[in-house]
Amino acid sequence: MADGDFGSQKDCFSAKMALALVLISLLIFLKQPIQELSQHSVWAILTVVVVFEFSIGATLSKGFNRGLGTLSAGGLALAMAELSQLAGEWEEIVIIISIFVIGFFATYAKLYPTLKPYEYGFRVFLLTYCFITVSGYRTGEFIHTAVTRFLLIALGAGVSLVVNICIYPIWAGEDLHNLVAKNFMNVATSLEGCVKGYLNCVEYERVPSKILNYQASDDPVYSGYRSAVESTSQEEALMGFAIWEPPHGPYKSLNYPWKNYAKVNGALRHCAFMVMALHGCILSEIQAPPERRQVFRQELQRVGAEGARVLRELGSKVKKMEKLGHVDILYEIHDAAEELQNKIDRKSYLLVNAESWEIGNRPHTVAEPQDLINFDNEEHNVLAHKSLSQPVLDLRSVNISSSWDVPKTIVGVNPAVAPSPASKDFLNKQISWNARGSFIADPIPQLEESKTYENASALSLATFTSLLIEFVARLQNVVDAFEELSEKANFKEPDELLAAA
Amino acid sequence: MADGDFGSQKDCFSAKMALALVLISLLIFLKQPIQELSQHSVWAILTVVVVFEFSIGATLSKGFNRGLGTLSAGGLALAMAELSQLAGEWEEIVIIISIFVIGFFATYAKLYPTLKPYEYGFRVFLLTYCFITVSGYRTGEFIHTAVTRFLLIALGAGVSLVVNICIYPIWAGEDLHNLVAKNFMNVATSLEGCVKGYLNCVEYERVPSKILNYQASDDPVYSGYRSAVESTSQEEALMGFAIWEPPHGPYKSLNYPWKNYAKVNGALRHCAFMVMALHGCILSEIQAPPERRQVFRQELQRVGAEGARVLRELGSKVKKMEKLGHVDILYEIHDAAEELQNKIDRKSYLLVNAESWEIGNRPHTVAEPQDLINFDNEEHNVLAHKSLSQPVLDLRSVNISSSWDVPKTIVGVNPAVAPSPASKDFLNKQISWNARGSFIADPIPQLEESKTYENASALSLATFTSLLIEFVARLQNVVDAFEELSEKANFKEPDELLAAA
Repeated sequence: MADGDFGSQKDCFSAKMALALVLISLLIFLKQPIQELSQHSVWAILTVVVVFEFSIGATLSKGFNRGLGTLSAGGLALAMAELSQLAGEWEEIVIIISIFVIGFFATYAKLYPTLKPYEYGFRVFLLTYCFITVSGYRTGEFIHTAVTRFLLIALGAGVSLVVNICIYPIWAGEDLHNLVAKNFMNVATSLEGCVKGYLNCVEYERVPSKILNYQASDDPVYSGYRSAVESTSQEEALMGFAIWEPPHGPYKSLNYPWKNYAKVNGALRHCAFMVMALHGCILSEIQAPPERRQVFRQELQRVGAEGARVLRELGSKVKKMEKLGHVDILYEIHDAAEELQNKIDRKSYLLVNAESWEIGNRPHTVAEPQDLINFDNEEHNVLAHKSLSQPVLDLRSVNISSSWDVPKTIVGVNPAVAPSPASKDFLNKQISWNARGSFIADPIPQLEESKTYENASALSLATFTSLLIEFVARLQNVVDAFEELSEKANFKEPDELLAAA
Repeated sequence: MADGDFGSQKDCFSAKMALALVLISLLIFLKQPIQELSQHSVWAILTVVVVFEFSIGATLSKGFNRGLGTLSAGGLALAMAELSQLAGEWEEIVIIISIFVIGFFATYAKLYPTLKPYEYGFRVFLLTYCFITVSGYRTGEFIHTAVTRFLLIALGAGVSLVVNICIYPIWAGEDLHNLVAKNFMNVATSLEGCVKGYLNCVEYERVPSKILNYQASDDPVYSGYRSAVESTSQEEALMGFAIWEPPHGPYKSLNYPWKNYAKVNGALRHCAFMVMALHGCILSEIQAPPERRQVFRQELQRVGAEGARVLRELGSKVKKMEKLGHVDILYEIHDAAEELQNKIDRKSYLLVNAESWEIGNRPHTVAEPQDLINFDNEEHNVLAHKSLSQPVLDLRSVNISSSWDVPKTIVGVNPAVAPSPASKDFLNKQISWNARGSFIADPIPQLEESKTYENASALSLATFTSLLIEFVARLQNVVDAFEELSEKANFKEPDELLAAA
């Protein structure tokens, strides 16, 4: 049923609505003998038009609002009618004043944020109160007006409910359930797209202004996470309706934990923000050099693929209403993240620009002769560092073990710079250099803006990997939220499935 | 007027609504002679209750929907009445069928996304059509029913409009305008909070689950950007109403560019996502060591402060409807970002963990004797690198020029490792070491997860700065959107202000 096929849902709903209207019209035609009732037929039609909403929850919620508003306003109007009659010749004025006072407070309450779901109830309340008071005053038949009106509204609401619930019901809860599952898939697609795009050095020649202004766009990577991020209001509306729905289909328990669906969605959104930030690295003008990205290709790809897999699996588990089971769903991705992290640890020199490093010694270490080595020319080191990373970069792969087979025996061949105990300190100072120049006056030249951003390019790769790792960290939270949901909603055990197979 | 003071707006609106209800009731009382009109008084009251919306734009839009729906449905119902009379004894069936067909198509159209703003119009259309057909069939007075109904609806709508527009009008456009200005201030507050929090090493002992699930929370840093991000639906609603409003107050031109307000808001949101990512660095379990953050304190602070200043200035310019003028509003922040970037260039070794670097030589360079230096013990280098960063870290400041005053004459004191021409290559290889170990089989030990995240800590600082710089880059887009708005909306020149002062 309602397999996310919105088109057929729409067809169905339209037919149901038309059917309800036909039914209420027929009832009015048939009831012609009861002339009086049918004189007020407008109330029944009005109720059907207004109360008949897309989902069962919305229909019930509106019906409840309408019923409560009508009843309470009716009671109040009758009481006020008695009171106003006591006022004798001031009756009209008392009625007018009561309308003002009640209009004021009902409107004020309606605007109160926590009473938002009952907004419609307040409208009905106001309408009923004014109508009964005014028409009752005119005809003197307060009670009669109120009762007729209430009966016809009940008739309209009854027809709406029966048609809406009995024929192909559309449940807000089911839509919420599907929305959450769909969001998982969307974020997974975005994540894959981001990692793939980043490794393939996809660049936007001109970032679409729709993305820059956060409007809807066709870009699949963008629309994937955007839909998850933007579903807040839809989710809130669906949740507000779902709690009105009686237990049905797979949502058997009373007090079904719809809030936990929203919580899972929120946790997923928290992850989606990281995917958004990853996409930001692709959108950015500041781009890491392609060859450096390739160094981490395998690891990035693995984390991306594993991340998408975890999201898809969670999504399909939400969809199938299945518990996680005993396998740690995050094991693989944590492993992949560790691998990426280790690679970064080993190659983090690729993530920074060594051109302008300033590293110095503490004065008190200037004691041993080796410490006195200082180069006033930074160029040396820059070049040195640059060529350090060269070999790795040029090979464009980590599978370069063979090229590295420098025989172990070579170690320590040159005694002038022999390693072993003393070399520790020695090396220490050897690599250091004094960037004193940078500290004299205001040494920073006004670089062009573009230069600044260019320099940031290598760091951009660091940002991408670090955001990806943060994404992995946030997955834990999604899994926690999912586990809470699967407990509270009493999802089935995956083992049962296996046993059944 | 309506200086963002929502409380007083609410008071006022409630009083207006009550007044409109009183007026319509009085009209019905007074019109008692015209018995027939007042028999249908419910339509006038209903119209007031339904059409009287918070803002002028919403009232006009609803009034228009109601008018159009009533008129078209009335016309259609009359035409159908004529037709059905031709059907003779099949009249009833023709009417029922027409109700079904019209009910189906009107409902279907209503669900169409692009017709969403006219949803209310379709409802009214349905209601009117059914009511006129049914009650007309009963009484045979189709035209009379339709005309009476239309007159009373016009009366109700007239009272609503006059009261709503003439007394303390609340404009959706003005609310949209204020919303955009407020969002600027909120994002600025968040940005400042993020940078401050990051430098003060604010850590969440336990990240509030509200943040993890992206629910509203009191955290000022979080709620600042969240309100800007979450204002999408509010903004869309306000924009939908604002375009209905006639020129008024400072929004003088016809076709006032309300869409550009939304565009500015979208561009701001695109920036706010970066602030969100910055906040993510604070929320993260992966935290950069405090002492390293201090190294960049001055620069980060400056960028943060300048960023907040730019946002606040843009916000106040939106508020005051003032053009940018000839001063480059981004000059200072670009300068600050460059300074930060330069600092990073010089100190990027602080952003990476040198513990596990693997840097090797290309095989073909293994020709000169110096190249043959290889250490099989990585420890050396780890320690070496570690102590490199030590001095800078411990001084916790960049103003450490005096401590660095190692006399220049010391350079080259030790001839064994003399610099000058040869030393270039020499150094190059000296620093290198062979991490061959890592390439044999699967060399990466299964580190604990926590260790992995710990290693990422230094990179987290790189991420923070890099996101901050990306934030600065995105500001350009906000400024562009603002300039487009200020042109199209004909904001006043700031010079005029100066001249007037």
